[in-house]
Amino acid sequence: MIPARLAVLAPGLIGGSVALAAARAFPQAKIVLWTRRPESIPALRSAFSHAEIGTEPALVAGSDLVLLAAPPSALLALSQAILPHLSPTTLVTDVSSMKGSVEKSLAPLFSRKARWIGSHPMAGSEISGFAAARHDLFQNAPVILTPTAATSAETLADATSFWQALGARILTLSPAEHDTQVAQISHLPHCVAAALALTAGTRSLPLAGPGYRDTTRIAAASADLWSEILLENRADILKTLQEFQGSLHRLTHALEQKDSVALQQALQEAAQIRRSLPRS
Amino acid sequence: MIPARLAVLAPGLIGGSVALAAARAFPQAKIVLWTRRPESIPALRSAFSHAEIGTEPALVAGSDLVLLAAPPSALLALSQAILPHLSPTTLVTDVSSMKGSVEKSLAPLFSRKARWIGSHPMAGSEISGFAAARHDLFQNAPVILTPTAATSAETLADATSFWQALGARILTLSPAEHDTQVAQISHLPHCVAAALALTAGTRSLPLAGPGYRDTTRIAAASADLWSEILLENRADILKTLQEFQGSLHRLTHALEQKDSVALQQALQEAAQIRRSLPRS
Repeated sequence: MIPARLAVLAPGLIGGSVALAAARAFPQAKIVLWTRRPESIPALRSAFSHAEIGTEPALVAGSDLVLLAAPPSALLALSQAILPHLSPTTLVTDVSSMKGSVEKSLAPLFSRKARWIGSHPMAGSEISGFAAARHDLFQNAPVILTPTAATSAETLADATSFWQALGARILTLSPAEHDTQVAQISHLPHCVAAALALTAGTRSLPLAGPGYRDTTRIAAASADLWSEILLENRADILKTLQEFQGSLHRLTHALEQKDSVALQQALQEAAQIRRSLPRS
Repeated sequence: MIPARLAVLAPGLIGGSVALAAARAFPQAKIVLWTRRPESIPALRSAFSHAEIGTEPALVAGSDLVLLAAPPSALLALSQAILPHLSPTTLVTDVSSMKGSVEKSLAPLFSRKARWIGSHPMAGSEISGFAAARHDLFQNAPVILTPTAATSAETLADATSFWQALGARILTLSPAEHDTQVAQISHLPHCVAAALALTAGTRSLPLAGPGYRDTTRIAAASADLWSEILLENRADILKTLQEFQGSLHRLTHALEQKDSVALQQALQEAAQIRRSLPRS
């Protein structure tokens, strides 16, 4: 779809990047930016000279596409606040890192009031806020859409073409399957990066090379946002943390036994998996 | 020191980068490249038109600086092979990731035959071989020197000024302290990156965003080289793997207990540690 009026609620790193990318992809569209904090309006104004910007939920009225980019804990109240200003044809989507819980709380709310579908762009940075937003954040980034039995083919097609126009590659999973796979590919790495940082502490930081730098980068992300995400996808993450223990034990056991064959084989398997990821 | 004749033995990623950087830093120096494999000579020749290149250890004769960049398992035999061609004033150093075991095997060998000191540049890539070498690999990279009671002040000063001329920041640690700290900051991240790749497998790779990409990047490195490194620094790595289990348990336990305060606190601590690393 080509939105005529696109509302982005909470334009931080992700929402702000959507707004920047959409302003280029859809030059005719009216961009509407809702922010909770009046103090962030000047920065938004200087980046979007023609946008409608404000703190009133009524701003979304008349939008054919609404993107909810607030943190998970704020999504329900924000959705309730904009509900009176939606029409049944409005496409509403989000950008949360977990989908089962979001689907459960938002789908009933938007039912017959708007066209709802969950989105999860696999893009971002350890730095949050609009200052870190980039118009090219979604270039070649995976965006997972999570349609359900209640999602119409048209809604799925519209969400697909919207994200594709921002440069994204679209994947489609059920909310439950999304949560399982994202626990492995995103939430587990986050836990592990944090544990790595906690283990080494600050003493050895002057020695850190690119290996430490990359493996721990995401540990610098917002603790508030990530404790919300991890708690919301708790069951899947606890399961994959157990799987991770098994993988790590394979390496530890080989080291304990001085079993160079087993160690090399495990590292070789890991290398083959990682090398099969296309270079971005 | 400003080397007049610099021999690099096994110019792969690290050795090749030293040679490329040294050719710029010391334009008057004769570069000597020893390689085990005759088939790699043409690529070296095209990068170093004025170098002496060959497969004979006698090539190092007359060098005032010898850099051993072969894999750990090849270091002893290579050192024995070049020994007759060294003079007591030749500075000999290496680039290995572990220092206790290297010191133990090489220091007695070079005693009174050359000026030996261990080096460990904290730089590299998951790609190995000369094709991945870069003249700027050591720009602002930490290089750890590991002098002992047997190291003269002049040897330490010469090794320091050599690496500094390639752009490196010098740190000095004992071989044992090096191994303890590098286990935490480099070897542990390598084990954890491999375990992450093994856990997620290939199924979810199409979903991978920058978090997975960065946390697992080094898992793509050479399994042969890394099984050698991990086994050589086995005791320190097993110890830090246990410390890592403690850190990870802190997060797992908070998730199990739905303890958002404890979870947020652990993530906040990790974020503060990681944010204290200067951006490169």
